[in-house]
Amino acid sequence: MLWKGYQVMKDMEIELAKAQVLIEALPYIQKFKDKIIVVKYGGSAMVDEDLKRKVIEDVVLLKLVGFKPIIVHGGGKEISKWVDKVGMETKFVNGLRVTDEPTMEIAEMVLNKVNKSLVSLIEELGVKAVGISGKDGGTLIVDKKYSEGEDIGFVGEVKTVNPDLIHTLLENDFVPVICPIGVDDDFHSYNINADDAACAIATAIKAEKLAFLTDIEGVYKDYDNKDTLISELSIEDARELIGGGTIGGGMLPKLNNCIDAIESGVSRVHILDGRIPHCLLLEIFTNKGIGTAILNKDAERFYEEK
Amino acid sequence: MLWKGYQVMKDMEIELAKAQVLIEALPYIQKFKDKIIVVKYGGSAMVDEDLKRKVIEDVVLLKLVGFKPIIVHGGGKEISKWVDKVGMETKFVNGLRVTDEPTMEIAEMVLNKVNKSLVSLIEELGVKAVGISGKDGGTLIVDKKYSEGEDIGFVGEVKTVNPDLIHTLLENDFVPVICPIGVDDDFHSYNINADDAACAIATAIKAEKLAFLTDIEGVYKDYDNKDTLISELSIEDARELIGGGTIGGGMLPKLNNCIDAIESGVSRVHILDGRIPHCLLLEIFTNKGIGTAILNKDAERFYEEK
Amino acid sequence: MLWKGYQVMKDMEIELAKAQVLIEALPYIQKFKDKIIVVKYGGSAMVDEDLKRKVIEDVVLLKLVGFKPIIVHGGGKEISKWVDKVGMETKFVNGLRVTDEPTMEIAEMVLNKVNKSLVSLIEELGVKAVGISGKDGGTLIVDKKYSEGEDIGFVGEVKTVNPDLIHTLLENDFVPVICPIGVDDDFHSYNINADDAACAIATAIKAEKLAFLTDIEGVYKDYDNKDTLISELSIEDARELIGGGTIGGGMLPKLNNCIDAIESGVSRVHILDGRIPHCLLLEIFTNKGIGTAILNKDAERFYEEK
Amino acid sequence: MLWKGYQVMKDMEIELAKAQVLIEALPYIQKFKDKIIVVKYGGSAMVDEDLKRKVIEDVVLLKLVGFKPIIVHGGGKEISKWVDKVGMETKFVNGLRVTDEPTMEIAEMVLNKVNKSLVSLIEELGVKAVGISGKDGGTLIVDKKYSEGEDIGFVGEVKTVNPDLIHTLLENDFVPVICPIGVDDDFHSYNINADDAACAIATAIKAEKLAFLTDIEGVYKDYDNKDTLISELSIEDARELIGGGTIGGGMLPKLNNCIDAIESGVSRVHILDGRIPHCLLLEIFTNKGIGTAILNKDAERFYEEK
Amino acid sequence: MLWKGYQVMKDMEIELAKAQVLIEALPYIQKFKDKIIVVKYGGSAMVDEDLKRKVIEDVVLLKLVGFKPIIVHGGGKEISKWVDKVGMETKFVNGLRVTDEPTMEIAEMVLNKVNKSLVSLIEELGVKAVGISGKDGGTLIVDKKYSEGEDIGFVGEVKTVNPDLIHTLLENDFVPVICPIGVDDDFHSYNINADDAACAIATAIKAEKLAFLTDIEGVYKDYDNKDTLISELSIEDARELIGGGTIGGGMLPKLNNCIDAIESGVSRVHILDGRIPHCLLLEIFTNKGIGTAILNKDAERFYEEK
Amino acid sequence: MLWKGYQVMKDMEIELAKAQVLIEALPYIQKFKDKIIVVKYGGSAMVDEDLKRKVIEDVVLLKLVGFKPIIVHGGGKEISKWVDKVGMETKFVNGLRVTDEPTMEIAEMVLNKVNKSLVSLIEELGVKAVGISGKDGGTLIVDKKYSEGEDIGFVGEVKTVNPDLIHTLLENDFVPVICPIGVDDDFHSYNINADDAACAIATAIKAEKLAFLTDIEGVYKDYDNKDTLISELSIEDARELIGGGTIGGGMLPKLNNCIDAIESGVSRVHILDGRIPHCLLLEIFTNKGIGTAILNKDAERFYEEK
Repeated sequence: MLWKGYQVMKDMEIELAKAQVLIEALPYIQKFKDKIIVVKYGGSAMVDEDLKRKVIEDVVLLKLVGFKPIIVHGGGKEISKWVDKVGMETKFVNGLRVTDEPTMEIAEMVLNKVNKSLVSLIEELGVKAVGISGKDGGTLIVDKKYSEGEDIGFVGEVKTVNPDLIHTLLENDFVPVICPIGVDDDFHSYNINADDAACAIATAIKAEKLAFLTDIEGVYKDYDNKDTLISELSIEDARELIGGGTIGGGMLPKLNNCIDAIESGVSRVHILDGRIPHCLLLEIFTNKGIGTAILNKDAERFYEEK
Repeated sequence: MLWKGYQVMKDMEIELAKAQVLIEALPYIQKFKDKIIVVKYGGSAMVDEDLKRKVIEDVVLLKLVGFKPIIVHGGGKEISKWVDKVGMETKFVNGLRVTDEPTMEIAEMVLNKVNKSLVSLIEELGVKAVGISGKDGGTLIVDKKYSEGEDIGFVGEVKTVNPDLIHTLLENDFVPVICPIGVDDDFHSYNINADDAACAIATAIKAEKLAFLTDIEGVYKDYDNKDTLISELSIEDARELIGGGTIGGGMLPKLNNCIDAIESGVSRVHILDGRIPHCLLLEIFTNKGIGTAILNKDAERFYEEK
Repeated sequence: MLWKGYQVMKDMEIELAKAQVLIEALPYIQKFKDKIIVVKYGGSAMVDEDLKRKVIEDVVLLKLVGFKPIIVHGGGKEISKWVDKVGMETKFVNGLRVTDEPTMEIAEMVLNKVNKSLVSLIEELGVKAVGISGKDGGTLIVDKKYSEGEDIGFVGEVKTVNPDLIHTLLENDFVPVICPIGVDDDFHSYNINADDAACAIATAIKAEKLAFLTDIEGVYKDYDNKDTLISELSIEDARELIGGGTIGGGMLPKLNNCIDAIESGVSRVHILDGRIPHCLLLEIFTNKGIGTAILNKDAERFYEEK
Repeated sequence: MLWKGYQVMKDMEIELAKAQVLIEALPYIQKFKDKIIVVKYGGSAMVDEDLKRKVIEDVVLLKLVGFKPIIVHGGGKEISKWVDKVGMETKFVNGLRVTDEPTMEIAEMVLNKVNKSLVSLIEELGVKAVGISGKDGGTLIVDKKYSEGEDIGFVGEVKTVNPDLIHTLLENDFVPVICPIGVDDDFHSYNINADDAACAIATAIKAEKLAFLTDIEGVYKDYDNKDTLISELSIEDARELIGGGTIGGGMLPKLNNCIDAIESGVSRVHILDGRIPHCLLLEIFTNKGIGTAILNKDAERFYEEK
Repeated sequence: MLWKGYQVMKDMEIELAKAQVLIEALPYIQKFKDKIIVVKYGGSAMVDEDLKRKVIEDVVLLKLVGFKPIIVHGGGKEISKWVDKVGMETKFVNGLRVTDEPTMEIAEMVLNKVNKSLVSLIEELGVKAVGISGKDGGTLIVDKKYSEGEDIGFVGEVKTVNPDLIHTLLENDFVPVICPIGVDDDFHSYNINADDAACAIATAIKAEKLAFLTDIEGVYKDYDNKDTLISELSIEDARELIGGGTIGGGMLPKLNNCIDAIESGVSRVHILDGRIPHCLLLEIFTNKGIGTAILNKDAERFYEEK
Repeated sequence: MLWKGYQVMKDMEIELAKAQVLIEALPYIQKFKDKIIVVKYGGSAMVDEDLKRKVIEDVVLLKLVGFKPIIVHGGGKEISKWVDKVGMETKFVNGLRVTDEPTMEIAEMVLNKVNKSLVSLIEELGVKAVGISGKDGGTLIVDKKYSEGEDIGFVGEVKTVNPDLIHTLLENDFVPVICPIGVDDDFHSYNINADDAACAIATAIKAEKLAFLTDIEGVYKDYDNKDTLISELSIEDARELIGGGTIGGGMLPKLNNCIDAIESGVSRVHILDGRIPHCLLLEIFTNKGIGTAILNKDAERFYEEK
């Protein structure tokens, strides 16, 4: 191959720009070398095939440059689809779907299907992955959860995380892909909220970072004013915001999860907009960052209102 | 607690008899210490809850006394049930069910459900297990399989076994529970015959023993005469029997699998009657043995016609 | 081999009962997996050839199912026999035999002979053993012991246990068989009471269990009433019993040893009747238990007077 | 921080393009994971401060994404400068500078100075490096070299490479930076041609890749026609070219080195234009490749004359 | 402390001479670093307390400077003493003492006593030792030996050496002290000739050196002429000497042992005069050497007749 | 070889005396097994070729008998020689030579030259060595040092020692040879006083011993009276001496270094007379000791005035 004339010069310039991008990634690679990053994967990024592939590419890249990513995923819409498919009806309590025995059975089937399909996507890109549920290796032990005192069926909250299997997989260079199913002390299966599971795992495994892929830009100071996105929050700020009562419904438990994780030793929790392609890479490898970061120390107020 | 009077003596006798049973197990425990035993789990032993629990107890005991058991399971009837449940129709080719895309999706869901329920049963008895499919860790890579040249859908035959994940699990004291799903070179999912998968895994992992739990007593010299059960077969004997044309339809591929496994280095393959409770323990811990054993060297003719 | 007719059914029933015994052992195997069990071996169980073999079988089984047994043995009667044989006379102080230089020489010879014969018995059953005295690897360092201030010769009490050699042997899958001889700081040999040696070793090596094989049923509340055997004792109970003054002479130092061991971290100490065949197995693998157990926490009062 | 309006969109596009570059690097990172890459560093890239920094950045990035780079460097012009500085005169034999004792002393001083300055540049970017000469750990043992039979002083050719120290450094995550000084069997110091040293080391250490940073674009089919740059060569091609007599003087020994390295097991040797910034990255992370690659199998003829 | 005047100078000279001796040991320490040296310990060096201590000092020094010494010892005279002591009579066959059951019992007791006393001597000098017989760890398995077809009782010849226990001890920094007792396939004890045991162990453990401590100066060309001591022999020379019929009775089996050991991979066998203090050190750390060395290659004829 | 007549007897006596010297070394070898000994090498012992070789022999012997020696060296006179050679002038501040940029460049070149020549001397004696500066592996990080507030150029004092590289080399059996150059936080090179560097390294690496090779006999109570040499000092004594104002100029910082090292955990610091051949061996392997030892506990007053 020969380099000559104008096109050659042009091509070279492009190549050099590319090299420059790689070089810019240096400090970030150094910073997270061998660090564990838990990615709660959900929302649009699980539905849109293109976004899905990009998330997986990000995870694979993180693994290849030396990080230790873990995926925790949900499967919400897919579960509803299959509940319908088999012609089952759904009971509601306090507006919440009740996970009775047959629903749990379907939930488990669907979550495992999603789980293994993520495994294959990762392996297609040349990295070994292993799909587990919280039942494997006794990883997630739960207590039954009630909604305002009412029975909502087989919905559990994490009581104990046994991280042995996850550590075994990480040490042997597999990417763990985890679906949020656990067992109670009698070994019955329970569904767990994926955000809660990700938070419990990140805490138990002493992750450096926990990233929630969501369908919003991040946390807003004023939810009704999209110009008030906050880029960085200390946990004091977070508590204040929650106290202020302006935090939207879906964000509230997530923010509480963030606070829990930070208090249990996770350094940074990120609420990312999963609708942005490669949002994980952008967050980790650029100075700008995207979404909202919750930090583990009294962060200087970084965020500005606009 | 006091030992006195007649009852005490009687109790003691019973206890001593129990101690004697444990002592009799000594040579078998020594023989299989650290050896890998692949159990193909299927048939009635997967349906009857009592038999199921006894198989799991056997596997747990094998693990606790130092063996390294691996379970490979199918899920046949359960798959049919769910295919019906969602109202799907089934195409047939050469009398074989065609595994089209939607069927494959259901098969995978069901097999994973069965897989995780076996994991929980094992963990309930205090041993850690991990449920994987052949997709995890790239364990089973398949080629598409045809039936007499006709397309029967996503049915694969094992091309390569990558035993890394299985070894990782065994070394870290987990019991691998494997469902027979693999991927082709394009990472599409395929269903694999569980007998074939068990045989391929036993071979790749250099198992000491491969045991098929079936719904028949074993191999008969004359299938129509139940008095002609054969207790031990060399592979020469096996080939001769096959040549003789008296081997029943279901047994033929199983026998061929046995021959393959023995030729690839597995020491012994057992065809056990899964309807007998604790058939695994009985086979391993007693002199009598049950079912039919296929041996890896020119075994003396042990079997007699009656 | 064929299963048919009545005899077959009968045989099968027996086999199933055997399988059941093995299954019942499961929880005990799990509980003591990789745990160290020190067996003080002495009394009738060392004299009667049949009992001897059964103790060794028990130790071998414990080893094979994953425990880590250590044998500490005495050799009392055998020593006296040889002292007579060479026509030596014996001095007594406070009714205790004085271990002068020539007696010590014979004691060491005899104990080593017993030691190596136990090694061979274990190896005959297919498990590797190594016979050591406390001189090997500097395992037992002693101070000279006096009886009420009077010199009784080369009788030592354990000052330090160096557990390196024992750990090396355990880690390399050998059963250590230890005879109770130690050296003082000038490297002279001393005889040690085997109970004391077992207790010191169990403590230093952080054993889970210490079992004394004795020639009595256990501890009696009232030594003269054989109906008052105690099955479980807390150390408070034990101290109370000692204070009560009803404990027989031979049992007193043994009970003090038990209290010491429990206080130094051994979980359970057992006083077993070595005259019962397979007493070790019975104690470990059955719910009933035999003999008297001294526990490391305020055990509920389990024992009843009858 | 908020994303809004046009600038935000524009910024995001740039960020996404950057993410894309990282994703494109995936297959190359996978391919060279844990592979050893020997970089012969010399020419303009050692003189121009900006180019120097870019080479070091490349090496640091290679290390961080999981490769194992080794630098072998010369120091030519710097040596001449110091020989002048101390007012020494230079003898010539066959037009070659004679490395007498005082010259060797200066050469060693200068090469070590260059060596340690490269170490500091690497460490400045956050990666640990260790500067060694072939004397350390007995790494390079030489024979005296003659020029057409004439004595040219302390110039050696590599007789043995002892790779222990290099392996120790690689395994402990240090980047070895090696200056081409060795000792003969009497432990006298000798200067070694840096190309030869790099080639000998790459061979001994079983490197995946050996890259020569030079001051030319690569190998030309016709040296006088800069349009005849060859992008890929098999060793047969290389031999043919050499036979053809059109290979320029400086390139001849380099090409022979390449052939040697390929024949000894190095997969690919690259002759790169060190004057192009980030030439190492460009070669490794882009499809285009730059310079001339010599391959270890009968490569298809890739190159075209223009 | 001050250095002054004449005495100081004198003292210093002595110290320097000592330093010089240490420095002279350098090449020998390097040569045998981590090498296994089997010492057959017997004869006068086991009887004379001063010689005994010096042998042990030598072994301890060898251990401390990095060699791996193993002692194999006999106990001949001591056994006879105890056989007499218990008033036993001795049968003879072909002039050889018959080792009947009671004799074997005493032999084992005495050998173990000697064994443990050597252990204590070594430990007194600060190095850990472990005394084993061939029964421990199944180290020495024997066949019954006959003398010209006649039964001489429990005298065995080594059939198999299982070196696992010895390796375990060496790797954990213990000096193995081995007494030559083994078991046959039925686990009966047998006495083994110590020279034979040492030779079998040296061979199995792939020792670098095997040294026999004897009561003669070495091998003589003409046994009746003490001026014909041979300092080095090839195995060809040894065979020739044996053929010549001039080799004395006691030396003949020893020489055959030497030939066997050399042929099985031991590099050098030494016949040393155990009556010379520190003969082991002298042999290993000086150029002169003492006694007779049998070499594993066609050694040049080093020896001269005088 | 034959032993006969008078000469033989005489030779043997000499050999035995040599063996005795080796035996006398036993307790010292035991004491320092696997212990780290930092040798600050400088003064006459670096100039006189014969003394140099003897120091290296000592270091090699220490290594071979199991110690872990580290050499830290200076290069003072050699640096001045080269500064003159290139015709540079020297600025002075407070009577101290200013290390400007060009001087630093020469210092680094010279120190590295000295460093590698020591490496070769060690390797010539058969032990592997690696020459590093404090720049390698980020071993020595410095702060700029001022002399009474005045700028004296690139002279640093050690701020941090990163011992990873040194540990890596020690664990892999290399002798580290370290020249006292470090970098500041901006990665500029600085010269460090070799005594200070040795002291900082000994402290960081938790050395057992730190030995300064100097050109004086040791510490004198009264510097003007050479009869007042002190053989042992507690740090209290040392402080008292310093307070007394009788300590000579060159000795003052060295003594302060000693106190620092002892306070940071080094057990013993020695000030040795490097002009005495084998002074290291004499200090370590003889009871007498030479020079002055500073001890880490309230040593009894050992020293006497004469």
